[in-house]
Amino acid sequence: MPLKAETRDKLMGVSTATLCTALFKRGLRNQFIQDVHPVNAQRDPKTPNMVGEAFTLRYIPAREDLNPITVFQDRAHPQRKAVETCPPGAVFVIDSRKDPRAASAGSILVTRLMKRGVAGIVTDGGFRDSPEIAQLAIPAYHHRPSAPTNLTLHQALDIDVPIGCGDVAVWPGDVVVGDGEGVVVIPAAIADEIAAEAVEMTAFEDFVTEKVNQGRSILGLYPPTDDKSRDEFAAWRKERGR
Amino acid sequence: MPLKAETRDKLMGVSTATLCTALFKRGLRNQFIQDVHPVNAQRDPKTPNMVGEAFTLRYIPAREDLNPITVFQDRAHPQRKAVETCPPGAVFVIDSRKDPRAASAGSILVTRLMKRGVAGIVTDGGFRDSPEIAQLAIPAYHHRPSAPTNLTLHQALDIDVPIGCGDVAVWPGDVVVGDGEGVVVIPAAIADEIAAEAVEMTAFEDFVTEKVNQGRSILGLYPPTDDKSRDEFAAWRKERGR
Amino acid sequence: MPLKAETRDKLMGVSTATLCTALFKRGLRNQFIQDVHPVNAQRDPKTPNMVGEAFTLRYIPAREDLNPITVFQDRAHPQRKAVETCPPGAVFVIDSRKDPRAASAGSILVTRLMKRGVAGIVTDGGFRDSPEIAQLAIPAYHHRPSAPTNLTLHQALDIDVPIGCGDVAVWPGDVVVGDGEGVVVIPAAIADEIAAEAVEMTAFEDFVTEKVNQGRSILGLYPPTDDKSRDEFAAWRKERGR
Amino acid sequence: MPLKAETRDKLMGVSTATLCTALFKRGLRNQFIQDVHPVNAQRDPKTPNMVGEAFTLRYIPAREDLNPITVFQDRAHPQRKAVETCPPGAVFVIDSRKDPRAASAGSILVTRLMKRGVAGIVTDGGFRDSPEIAQLAIPAYHHRPSAPTNLTLHQALDIDVPIGCGDVAVWPGDVVVGDGEGVVVIPAAIADEIAAEAVEMTAFEDFVTEKVNQGRSILGLYPPTDDKSRDEFAAWRKERGR
Amino acid sequence: MPLKAETRDKLMGVSTATLCTALFKRGLRNQFIQDVHPVNAQRDPKTPNMVGEAFTLRYIPAREDLNPITVFQDRAHPQRKAVETCPPGAVFVIDSRKDPRAASAGSILVTRLMKRGVAGIVTDGGFRDSPEIAQLAIPAYHHRPSAPTNLTLHQALDIDVPIGCGDVAVWPGDVVVGDGEGVVVIPAAIADEIAAEAVEMTAFEDFVTEKVNQGRSILGLYPPTDDKSRDEFAAWRKERGR
Amino acid sequence: MPLKAETRDKLMGVSTATLCTALFKRGLRNQFIQDVHPVNAQRDPKTPNMVGEAFTLRYIPAREDLNPITVFQDRAHPQRKAVETCPPGAVFVIDSRKDPRAASAGSILVTRLMKRGVAGIVTDGGFRDSPEIAQLAIPAYHHRPSAPTNLTLHQALDIDVPIGCGDVAVWPGDVVVGDGEGVVVIPAAIADEIAAEAVEMTAFEDFVTEKVNQGRSILGLYPPTDDKSRDEFAAWRKERGR
Repeated sequence: MPLKAETRDKLMGVSTATLCTALFKRGLRNQFIQDVHPVNAQRDPKTPNMVGEAFTLRYIPAREDLNPITVFQDRAHPQRKAVETCPPGAVFVIDSRKDPRAASAGSILVTRLMKRGVAGIVTDGGFRDSPEIAQLAIPAYHHRPSAPTNLTLHQALDIDVPIGCGDVAVWPGDVVVGDGEGVVVIPAAIADEIAAEAVEMTAFEDFVTEKVNQGRSILGLYPPTDDKSRDEFAAWRKERGR
Repeated sequence: MPLKAETRDKLMGVSTATLCTALFKRGLRNQFIQDVHPVNAQRDPKTPNMVGEAFTLRYIPAREDLNPITVFQDRAHPQRKAVETCPPGAVFVIDSRKDPRAASAGSILVTRLMKRGVAGIVTDGGFRDSPEIAQLAIPAYHHRPSAPTNLTLHQALDIDVPIGCGDVAVWPGDVVVGDGEGVVVIPAAIADEIAAEAVEMTAFEDFVTEKVNQGRSILGLYPPTDDKSRDEFAAWRKERGR
Repeated sequence: MPLKAETRDKLMGVSTATLCTALFKRGLRNQFIQDVHPVNAQRDPKTPNMVGEAFTLRYIPAREDLNPITVFQDRAHPQRKAVETCPPGAVFVIDSRKDPRAASAGSILVTRLMKRGVAGIVTDGGFRDSPEIAQLAIPAYHHRPSAPTNLTLHQALDIDVPIGCGDVAVWPGDVVVGDGEGVVVIPAAIADEIAAEAVEMTAFEDFVTEKVNQGRSILGLYPPTDDKSRDEFAAWRKERGR
Repeated sequence: MPLKAETRDKLMGVSTATLCTALFKRGLRNQFIQDVHPVNAQRDPKTPNMVGEAFTLRYIPAREDLNPITVFQDRAHPQRKAVETCPPGAVFVIDSRKDPRAASAGSILVTRLMKRGVAGIVTDGGFRDSPEIAQLAIPAYHHRPSAPTNLTLHQALDIDVPIGCGDVAVWPGDVVVGDGEGVVVIPAAIADEIAAEAVEMTAFEDFVTEKVNQGRSILGLYPPTDDKSRDEFAAWRKERGR
Repeated sequence: MPLKAETRDKLMGVSTATLCTALFKRGLRNQFIQDVHPVNAQRDPKTPNMVGEAFTLRYIPAREDLNPITVFQDRAHPQRKAVETCPPGAVFVIDSRKDPRAASAGSILVTRLMKRGVAGIVTDGGFRDSPEIAQLAIPAYHHRPSAPTNLTLHQALDIDVPIGCGDVAVWPGDVVVGDGEGVVVIPAAIADEIAAEAVEMTAFEDFVTEKVNQGRSILGLYPPTDDKSRDEFAAWRKERGR
Repeated sequence: MPLKAETRDKLMGVSTATLCTALFKRGLRNQFIQDVHPVNAQRDPKTPNMVGEAFTLRYIPAREDLNPITVFQDRAHPQRKAVETCPPGAVFVIDSRKDPRAASAGSILVTRLMKRGVAGIVTDGGFRDSPEIAQLAIPAYHHRPSAPTNLTLHQALDIDVPIGCGDVAVWPGDVVVGDGEGVVVIPAAIADEIAAEAVEMTAFEDFVTEKVNQGRSILGLYPPTDDKSRDEFAAWRKERGR
């Protein structure tokens, strides 16, 4: 069940906050990756969202004897192999066990992902070369910068298995969306309906924001418990064609 | 004992660091809200301070059965009611138990506060829609962005009661001041004297900074244990009319 | 064994990430100061690195009776004395026991260090007046902003002794390097060889980045297990004169 | 809706683990007070549970000028008043904001609660005089021992209001149950049904434990997906009269 | 390469501290599972060690829709299957992502492991029914008690794959040793030599302890830089037959 | 100003909680070492307190090349030297930077301290061989057990300098008192008066406890705002000869 282009487009233009509410309504309370932020803090708020299906990489703690610098000479090393096999359009999500004391990856690997058409990269640890990554044309999310090579504390192990990232379950194929606030994970089976609902909610939130900016009280408007609010919204939609 | 316009003006132009020192001299060592930051990280350092009397909202942990999405249909829901009743010129301070895993509020409520003339908003949790909030013309302070709806973890309970925020006691009516560094809470009863003293200290710090930039040692100057330093400062004040 | 001008120059232009890898190869896995960041978040990524020999200041917890505001009237107070005696070109490193709840120093002291030609300042606590410090022409690194005066929680004790900073051992004379990512500590005895190796590694990384940006796979290139990659790099170096 | 004697009796003999499962089945996932332990680590595992309705006390951070040692001379001080008004049979629950750096209460107050017939005491901070409290004939639960007087960091404020304790919502009248593992909070409205269900579950768990101790596999037994398991359990109950 | 009976016997009688030193000498600095403790705090210090090869279970965060209480009706559920397939003599090690807010397992499963001859159980989360587990004749190690069912936060996923536990890499077949202090993980390939060396070291430590108890200084004795110390130890060994 | 035998005796019989209150009355709010516990959890509550003057040892983070296992062959290694020079009757206090991931010391060194007549040992890290230490006739306090050798993370550096331990300033010669609850640090200059006051307070607390056990309310009794309470206490003291 690949991600539909239409769904991807919808998810480009709604916020992670709105998506979290749509998920909350379905009993999914824990889909926002905790304490993970855009590497690029100066990110333009109008940048479209990162959207793609999750392609995962699992790290375990590194044992010193298994992780000399020479391990990367192996073309089958899972970190390197994952970078070369992540499908274009996917989001590369790393389980770093929330440990940012050593890097999850650096700018060369992230550049390669960018060139391969990958939609973004997320770790619950930290990236090295973060100032360079912040300038790349690929969204990247982490906890905080971390210069030590990943061999210091992380050993790449599994490719595209279910993982935890920032206390959230990430199953391969889940739809991952990132904006200026952070990253949310949508179960694949409900991505279409969540996207559709979020577009509706966004229209309403835009309407409400406009009204509030005009001086309206939120009572009766947000949520629209007054008939008047609902009528006005209907008119507003018609007028805007949304 | 409402906040005097004159005191408000003074507090607009002094730093939270200077205020903390003035409070420290009176034995108040714990008035700086810990680990709370401006939502707008690109904030212009010349922006005037957020200043206002504390108007508080208390959250407790949310219990699932008491917090379906429908609770906001109640016009008396404390979060919504607080937003509509916070006095213009006040600072809206939320006790989120230092838990940023779900939002304390989002951009629509913060916009409404802005339109109502509220001076600023502070939480020891996180805001959702934080990229939008960062662009609003109202100062907002939190721990970190948080997309999940506040019902996920927070239940609004009490309006304008004494609370804790970032390990600081906040009593309704305390004077809350925020700059680019963070937020300090001044007990209402001493706001005038603290403001006056901080203005004096700021003049001296500006003088010292000027001298240090001219190459002067801090010894004897900061603090001014040399007579010469005190004389120079007196002359400097006269010259600047401060 | 003072820091050679040539070594300083080399260290100006390599990243902390590259330095960490060079240290890792020598069995030094723990030289990156954890969770310490540039005060100036809008720092231009092209700014040259902070480089200098460590000059240290050790804080212990403050006891209330020993730390009234008047202690700074003593010209021999270790914090003030350290600021006046730190050698030009050195990096001033403070052991704040990873406690950012009160300030390690403020803008006047940092300005004085700048005027004295000190190369930078690092604490594993927080600075006060951080918005002002962010604008100064001296690199400063901390955990987070902290307005309370340092007397609130810190007592300056020892000057230029071995300390811990962000879980890293810092020995006086170690070479401290900071970039947009953070701060790394290089043992004095190997600073020259680490600098030389990092320059070599940087040339190779620049080559790899260029190739990856041209669409090349990392396999066989990074690390250069293919002969072709090694040959191309040799040609690239000759061409660039690196 | 006071706690029925029959419900209290049932809750005396079931575990907090079983109660958590019964609550989980009703969508209540967050009723176990996190990181709170019996003060008496040598507690006999056969001790009956602590059971009673929640009577709460809310602390906020202490401000130095409001909390000299003399505040306790006021008979209406909320901490002292709460101790004298907590109903016999209730559980006294304190919101200490998960801060154990100063005490929530000490042995004299806990002794007084014991003499007044209170069923137990819980804080998400720490008790002082904890070695004495461990010897008292009243169950007490905290995070860890803490000798500093509560005025150091806590100010008692509200009596019998909804609070948070260890990340759990505690509403006055909720039924609080503690065993050797910790403390669970049952919403008042469902206490009877939860108690009844837990008694049933406990009978089944006792049956399963007996069978497992006899060498039986858990497959088909726990849960009892095999008809045989269900039949055996029915026979076991009849035999034991449970 | 199954664990030799002789090696198992040796590991029964040496401490985790001694094993950590033997591992440290080989460059393995990170083999002690952090912050994991015997469930039975009253454990007799003379109890023989837990020793066995690691058999692992990996948890990821639970998603609500995938983890209703009914999942255990599936005989192939990885948690239940793992309990029934863990080899006798092995140590069952669970990766709970250091999250003790919900249980890793409870007394029925631990009893079943005990009956199946499993050597012990370790989690970096918490057990429920911990007072019962403390009484069982099988060693169990966790971070702290945790009553909520594991479905609340954990989803069992993989059986006998490499995992992290308490920041340590655990590979299936590694030799896991637990004493009253905690748990250490020995890479399978060096278990024999580490065991042999630890037995030697233990003899020496017993000798030193005896001497120190007789009033001897540690200088020259520990380590035995004096010839006399080495001679005495040789005599002591001969005398004791060790 | 050595510790008077009389003061030592007084401090043997009062609680750390009472001492904290006496210190609080003098404005010293931060003298209780945070999160440090008796190694011997089964400690008899009637054991007399640990009392002695602080003799300190300072650790910094270990750098791998400076801390091979061979460093202990140096008789002047600060850890070993400190153990041999700590005065009998003193309390050995280690600044482990609150890092228990590797040991601060083990049973052989603690045994040596015991034999040398040292009054106790405290670290804000962890001890290895903790089950053995728990059985020794010397009080020992730490955060939690930790088997890895201290060279893994700690380098002993300074002997008998001012340090931080569990967020408390410890100056050589300060009087350190430990009971079943934890450890408090009394500035040397006020040890006599604090001891005297604590003895008085303890008499009163014993009186209050007796009355409360007889059923008396705490109001008017604790503190003794009623004349009657004060009279009764005077009579009680006379009767008991206290």
